[in-house]
Amino acid sequence: MKKILITGGTGFAASHLVEALIEHGETEIHLTAYKDRGSYVKNLIKSDHIHELNLTDFQATQELLEQIKPDQIYHLASIATVGNSFEKAQFVMEMNLNLQLSLLEAMAQIVPNARLLHVSTALIYQASTDKINESSAFGPDNPYALSKLTQDLLCENYSKNYQLDIVRVRPFNHIGERQTLGFVVADWACGIAKIEKGLEKELSVGNLESIRDFSDVKDIVQGYILLMNQGKSGEVYNLGSGKGIKIKEILDQLIKQANCPIPVVSDQSKIRPVDLPYLVCDNEKIKQLGWQQHHQLAETLGRVLEYWRESL
Amino acid sequence: MKKILITGGTGFAASHLVEALIEHGETEIHLTAYKDRGSYVKNLIKSDHIHELNLTDFQATQELLEQIKPDQIYHLASIATVGNSFEKAQFVMEMNLNLQLSLLEAMAQIVPNARLLHVSTALIYQASTDKINESSAFGPDNPYALSKLTQDLLCENYSKNYQLDIVRVRPFNHIGERQTLGFVVADWACGIAKIEKGLEKELSVGNLESIRDFSDVKDIVQGYILLMNQGKSGEVYNLGSGKGIKIKEILDQLIKQANCPIPVVSDQSKIRPVDLPYLVCDNEKIKQLGWQQHHQLAETLGRVLEYWRESL
Repeated sequence: MKKILITGGTGFAASHLVEALIEHGETEIHLTAYKDRGSYVKNLIKSDHIHELNLTDFQATQELLEQIKPDQIYHLASIATVGNSFEKAQFVMEMNLNLQLSLLEAMAQIVPNARLLHVSTALIYQASTDKINESSAFGPDNPYALSKLTQDLLCENYSKNYQLDIVRVRPFNHIGERQTLGFVVADWACGIAKIEKGLEKELSVGNLESIRDFSDVKDIVQGYILLMNQGKSGEVYNLGSGKGIKIKEILDQLIKQANCPIPVVSDQSKIRPVDLPYLVCDNEKIKQLGWQQHHQLAETLGRVLEYWRESL
Repeated sequence: MKKILITGGTGFAASHLVEALIEHGETEIHLTAYKDRGSYVKNLIKSDHIHELNLTDFQATQELLEQIKPDQIYHLASIATVGNSFEKAQFVMEMNLNLQLSLLEAMAQIVPNARLLHVSTALIYQASTDKINESSAFGPDNPYALSKLTQDLLCENYSKNYQLDIVRVRPFNHIGERQTLGFVVADWACGIAKIEKGLEKELSVGNLESIRDFSDVKDIVQGYILLMNQGKSGEVYNLGSGKGIKIKEILDQLIKQANCPIPVVSDQSKIRPVDLPYLVCDNEKIKQLGWQQHHQLAETLGRVLEYWRESL
């Protein structure tokens, strides 16, 4: 029986990944959790398969790999603090560097034949009016994105220098139920649900002009499973719908699905100094492996709205 | 009187930079030194202008900037340990990340109007059969190179987000007297000088097929001074001769300048797993500012050989 380990296993995408793996018939699924036992996944996974672990602790990471001996590692763990303060920059960069080195080194020592799917991010790319493919220029615009680029390139180093079996995926924006506040779609859906319940009067929005590539998290995690099983070792794959959507369109669709009129006010303070204007995926490479989008935006937004209605 | 601070001021390139700045008439030159008081530069610089400092110590870095209030900072300090062991990788990446964050943050707080010349490296680029310009693809092949890419992109972040006046330079290989052992030209020149003195019998060499862009360190530091004074804020400049030289050609020229026959043996263990085959500078951008090469390879190699003859 194949043993699967998911790092960052209690996060948003991981919770959908666990569901999808169970649907695929996987039973030996282990998670690492950091400061959060995962309120959702604990209904899906045996409690002794949820391992509290700070991945920057090299010895503890070695011990866990020794105990589980995974065949496949989905590596989703990262600190996602965004912000340009010195303390935040130092924290996010050090943590993400150290957890990456710790995991790669423990893997090289203990499970050198396992496959690792490294979950990188499209934020490492420079914004461009062309669709972004796997050879497009890097341009990480904040310390978080820079730390993710470092992780990504460390994977390349380790797969070359130690012949580790690593596939990297660079997902574009993804949305769905259980995404935390702080991301635009979650913020808006939550705000609309509050207005529907009379808890708030208006929805405050920032920049509506940026163009992004939004996918349903369920399509994204199917991409992860596909790459884990069929991705070429050492290669990197972009993952996204391939369609550019103006943020305003998302807002319009959410408002259309609301049960009452939604007054919108513009808040200049929500516009970050560096907001990439255009970031859309060239997904030809992963489509050649058979990946395709199954969930349409309207459906996904409906589920997200329903999730927040039930959560309040 | 303009105040100049050079970080990593006791290193190889810095010692030549100090000489060149003195020739340019600069008198207010301060250096930071880490674990090394600089046997050479201490003859050129007042001892109270050589400041022992670990740049990763944020408070000490703040205090030094407060004390000196430099107008110009030549930032050459970095840990240059190469090697793929976990401990070395972690050390070099953490040190180079932390010293960079510390210096940029201290600069933003204390001397926000100073100009910083950040000395990056061509090792952050992917090897290519085309000459490499400032937009060429990144491909750092080891943890040191990756840490230097992180530093370089952090500079870009800080100049954008904090409007700091930063110019980046990406030098290709440079050689000259006082370069330490561990670099190919220094190793060979030292080996030849030893054979000339009868201290050794043969010269052991690794890969001779790689093509690199070698410049005299004296031309490189003139490039640094040019960019500090005339480089465009926020921009990045490649710096190198623009000529690809096969490593074997360097060996042949050194042997030609030797005082006796030099028996050469090939040592496969000296060939590193990832040796970039071709890395040559497209220097059009810096040439437009007026930079040019003044020292020819044969002259430089002669000086290096002479340096090692005198050092033994």
